[in-house]
Amino acid sequence: MIAVLKRGTTIEQREHLIRWLKNMNLDVHVSSGKEITVLGLVGDTSRLDTELLTSLEIVESVKRVSEPFKQANRKFHPADTVVKIGDIKIGGGNFAMIAGPCSVESQDQITQIALDVKAGGADILRGGAFKPRTSPYAFQGLKDEGIRMLTEAKKVSGMPIITEIMNVRSLELFEDVDIIQVGARNMQNFDLLQELGKTQKPILLKRGLANTLQELLMSAEYIMSEGNENIILCERGIRTYETYTRNTLDLSAVPVLHNLTHLPVIVDPSHATGKASLVPSMALAAAACGADGIMVEVHNDPTCALCDGAQSITPDQFATLNKKVQTVREAIK
Amino acid sequence: MIAVLKRGTTIEQREHLIRWLKNMNLDVHVSSGKEITVLGLVGDTSRLDTELLTSLEIVESVKRVSEPFKQANRKFHPADTVVKIGDIKIGGGNFAMIAGPCSVESQDQITQIALDVKAGGADILRGGAFKPRTSPYAFQGLKDEGIRMLTEAKKVSGMPIITEIMNVRSLELFEDVDIIQVGARNMQNFDLLQELGKTQKPILLKRGLANTLQELLMSAEYIMSEGNENIILCERGIRTYETYTRNTLDLSAVPVLHNLTHLPVIVDPSHATGKASLVPSMALAAAACGADGIMVEVHNDPTCALCDGAQSITPDQFATLNKKVQTVREAIK
Amino acid sequence: MIAVLKRGTTIEQREHLIRWLKNMNLDVHVSSGKEITVLGLVGDTSRLDTELLTSLEIVESVKRVSEPFKQANRKFHPADTVVKIGDIKIGGGNFAMIAGPCSVESQDQITQIALDVKAGGADILRGGAFKPRTSPYAFQGLKDEGIRMLTEAKKVSGMPIITEIMNVRSLELFEDVDIIQVGARNMQNFDLLQELGKTQKPILLKRGLANTLQELLMSAEYIMSEGNENIILCERGIRTYETYTRNTLDLSAVPVLHNLTHLPVIVDPSHATGKASLVPSMALAAAACGADGIMVEVHNDPTCALCDGAQSITPDQFATLNKKVQTVREAIK
Amino acid sequence: MIAVLKRGTTIEQREHLIRWLKNMNLDVHVSSGKEITVLGLVGDTSRLDTELLTSLEIVESVKRVSEPFKQANRKFHPADTVVKIGDIKIGGGNFAMIAGPCSVESQDQITQIALDVKAGGADILRGGAFKPRTSPYAFQGLKDEGIRMLTEAKKVSGMPIITEIMNVRSLELFEDVDIIQVGARNMQNFDLLQELGKTQKPILLKRGLANTLQELLMSAEYIMSEGNENIILCERGIRTYETYTRNTLDLSAVPVLHNLTHLPVIVDPSHATGKASLVPSMALAAAACGADGIMVEVHNDPTCALCDGAQSITPDQFATLNKKVQTVREAIK
Repeated sequence: MIAVLKRGTTIEQREHLIRWLKNMNLDVHVSSGKEITVLGLVGDTSRLDTELLTSLEIVESVKRVSEPFKQANRKFHPADTVVKIGDIKIGGGNFAMIAGPCSVESQDQITQIALDVKAGGADILRGGAFKPRTSPYAFQGLKDEGIRMLTEAKKVSGMPIITEIMNVRSLELFEDVDIIQVGARNMQNFDLLQELGKTQKPILLKRGLANTLQELLMSAEYIMSEGNENIILCERGIRTYETYTRNTLDLSAVPVLHNLTHLPVIVDPSHATGKASLVPSMALAAAACGADGIMVEVHNDPTCALCDGAQSITPDQFATLNKKVQTVREAIK
Repeated sequence: MIAVLKRGTTIEQREHLIRWLKNMNLDVHVSSGKEITVLGLVGDTSRLDTELLTSLEIVESVKRVSEPFKQANRKFHPADTVVKIGDIKIGGGNFAMIAGPCSVESQDQITQIALDVKAGGADILRGGAFKPRTSPYAFQGLKDEGIRMLTEAKKVSGMPIITEIMNVRSLELFEDVDIIQVGARNMQNFDLLQELGKTQKPILLKRGLANTLQELLMSAEYIMSEGNENIILCERGIRTYETYTRNTLDLSAVPVLHNLTHLPVIVDPSHATGKASLVPSMALAAAACGADGIMVEVHNDPTCALCDGAQSITPDQFATLNKKVQTVREAIK
Repeated sequence: MIAVLKRGTTIEQREHLIRWLKNMNLDVHVSSGKEITVLGLVGDTSRLDTELLTSLEIVESVKRVSEPFKQANRKFHPADTVVKIGDIKIGGGNFAMIAGPCSVESQDQITQIALDVKAGGADILRGGAFKPRTSPYAFQGLKDEGIRMLTEAKKVSGMPIITEIMNVRSLELFEDVDIIQVGARNMQNFDLLQELGKTQKPILLKRGLANTLQELLMSAEYIMSEGNENIILCERGIRTYETYTRNTLDLSAVPVLHNLTHLPVIVDPSHATGKASLVPSMALAAAACGADGIMVEVHNDPTCALCDGAQSITPDQFATLNKKVQTVREAIK
Repeated sequence: MIAVLKRGTTIEQREHLIRWLKNMNLDVHVSSGKEITVLGLVGDTSRLDTELLTSLEIVESVKRVSEPFKQANRKFHPADTVVKIGDIKIGGGNFAMIAGPCSVESQDQITQIALDVKAGGADILRGGAFKPRTSPYAFQGLKDEGIRMLTEAKKVSGMPIITEIMNVRSLELFEDVDIIQVGARNMQNFDLLQELGKTQKPILLKRGLANTLQELLMSAEYIMSEGNENIILCERGIRTYETYTRNTLDLSAVPVLHNLTHLPVIVDPSHATGKASLVPSMALAAAACGADGIMVEVHNDPTCALCDGAQSITPDQFATLNKKVQTVREAIK
């Protein structure tokens, strides 16, 4: 970390600051120019409050030189992480299509969609059992019953399953779930992240509604710092002033994250746009910019879906989309 | 709810839609003009997915006529809610000053600050025991030990205390806490909200980093729908593109929320700005626009604070500020 | 337009409002249900202030049924507009690669880059002569001299040229310019738009820093309403809280605009990301989601560019990118 | 400016960079620690492209130490600027109330409102003659005729007048206008700013829809660098995701700007909120946080206003508000 001191700082002030910094077990290198004095801070700066340092009267500005995420950092772990779910791989050149309904609604529904999307080329089945809803009066999911149905659909279709967790207390219900999803609203539910870090389950970590990419990586770091490195990051749109789409899909997150981290990155165009008609274009764009997978909502009867029908495509549309996605992936090789 | 149909919609299409809506137990009133056909939907529309309805081929647009929040709605409960904490009241013309350090750091620290801010005019003592931090490597708070120290400071100073909860599992530790704070990152941790709804503790609910006022009210609704009506809303800044302040304090939230709901509304200028030098101005502005209270971070030695020292003012600055706040409150009567 | 009246509105109040609306030459259709009264307003509602109407005491809510843009609207003009620049076509299935330096710096520079990007597959040459810069102390472009150099590069390379206009007064300098660019900061410089509407030059209209897609279309409407229909829309990133990229490229704008309007839509990944390393990925994504063209900054020596070198790719990188873009376009057919 | 080099940078690479920087007439001070090498750049860095420098392979990060605005900077001009309009002063402890209709609609209207707001305590009369409207079909103002009417109202009421300019070409019409307003959409119309810099008229410069405070100051710098130092800055709300208010009023801009610059800062709560019912609260908050003036829209018959009636208060409401504003100003002294 670099701290630039203001002109006119006295030697006493400077020495007082240096003592304070050394008390935090930091080495301090002083570079004194005619115009500028710079302190280089070496050591574990992660506990140092940069905003506090910046606010001090003699400090002009402070700059972190190193990223605050360590285990997720590509600099210290150059090779791509490949997350394995049975025979399926994600990352390091391996691409996965994840498809299924927003919510599990009945055994018939989830099993039928599972078979349909598998026929259309899906690798992994998604389906919500615990549904975070803005309104307490909206459908909240079938909960443990939903997970049971998903598990049954897994048996019938042979596909691994992914579903969202909302609460540490329901973790034991996820034993047969192959990938545990942390939703956008829980991206900074740090207690939940730490508990998931103690398992070895693959975790799909969605970017929060208005979180930076660095915050997303810090949340991955919460999981990794407890020992679980099986993390898949997911861009799903951020909140902006534009209202035509539900969120604004930030596809530049894909190459940026690939620069910053070794973890795989997938894209969810369904939640990002909120409109089925925009899903295929955005899925193709995601494939073109190098995403390691795509997660789309598919429903056999979108107008009767209990939740998010507006953004679901049909199994036929999914099969068509999947073919195009594979062609685009070939094109960018 | 109002649905406007597209020109050229056939009678068959319209009747098909009406049957679908009636299946959801809604009454449908048809208003057919020469140019425009409008369906008025009456009944419990809270489970109806408006985005799905909007996406249907024959639907031009959909508009909710009534707000989705019920118990928090001033229309159905015109009188101001007054939250009582012992002798202290918040709302309905009653104003409270909440002050204290970001984190509880030691028994001496919290007790001393408690006595100092009480002398400066504070009504309630704040102090963080469980700290949500972006980085897993940053100071996470003294946890249950911190709550114990706060409770001791409560005894010594005679002030009620407020501290943040991060997890349903630690609820039992909050028995002697007077107001439980739900932080910005947990505003949509719906499981936590529902559990807090089952208590009768006053809850201070902070607006999320990028949440709308309607979403804030829906989160209050989660708590109220379980039976707890002792809720204080808190504006603490939202995330925007401006980087000079940590967040952008949205003070118009105060009069807007006062229009929409009967719940009291307080303002936290410390987290909103992230800079101690801006706290007094923003606290005065909050008082001027009608806030029911102000929560500020106060630390006896901000440069040594373990957390958020940059935004803490000293006990002396607090005492001065408190006097001005009271004068402004007189001025707007 | 639809206005929903509040419950409890008296007949006198309603009739008073209807008289006021009829005074604005609107036809008013009343649809009175048991619970809901809706007024349907027919006629030219473009001069009606919807916010004022909404603010009236008896009005619950107001909803525009029809989009406020007319000439740009695909509903009234279903066929794709194809903008022709000599032999080059943009829109309706025709795709163009636009490339060149941020600024024209010298005759040698612009001519050499022109030949280089043409060899690499570019259709149109870009280069800034008038440069809008945040700081008055930054390089402001070579102005009329720059346009002269661009025109010379056009002769030598045989490529049409595009450059930005900042001021109505310099319009006469643009006689030999093939496409006039309106930059993001001038998207709502309505006087400039109206003057450009009086020419028949193709106009490339960039989306403003924080403008909605509807506002972009209203600005196109300003040009079209004066008689010029040769408009190309350009997505170039919007301002959000994320700081890793200069702006957030909103690629969903491409399919959304294709739904709403018949005008062609191109993408500028250079200004959107501000980083050369991200340009190829975002250009491929733009091609994959159906853009009608891509505009990229290319410089033969990015580290010596007078402006925006950070986001410029080299001619070699451009040639490689162009091949991949064409392959992706094949893939999505 | 500070540039931090990456670990592993060779001496050749470093020397190559230093030569490049010296070519730009910068002095380079090298501070080489064991872990960190920092280059301190001294001289006119305003022409240096920091993003380009950051993008170089051997550069870890770059930090501007000094603000890029010079003439507007309080560091170099500690005393408050006081803008004088006849007997009226703004800044340096002097406060002005600016009031009037959004648009000039007729001679009677503007004269009557002028007399009304003067009686209610206004110091300066506002009124729009040239109106920037999102839609080409909306009322665009009475233009030169409107300015003539304003001038007449100035004579009758004895109040100085302020009105908005949209185009360099209409500058000569503003001879009798006392303060020229640059609207939010033109904050970065640099040609217009430079022309206004050549006059000595007081300029009210509104913050753009999504511009940072630093960009606002850079736009002031455009005017000042041409010789005109009579600038009043105006916060009028920024664009965020919240839709309840038209914009989000960023009141922390007031103390922040007071820290950064010597120029006076006023607040426009009418455009910020878009709702008359919120204007008084926000005006009081602006006074409480130290604004040097407030500009509000007042209309004698808001429901018949041709423009922005929803946000206009009546002359009576204005008189009441003015009294409270003065009391709040007393309270914070």
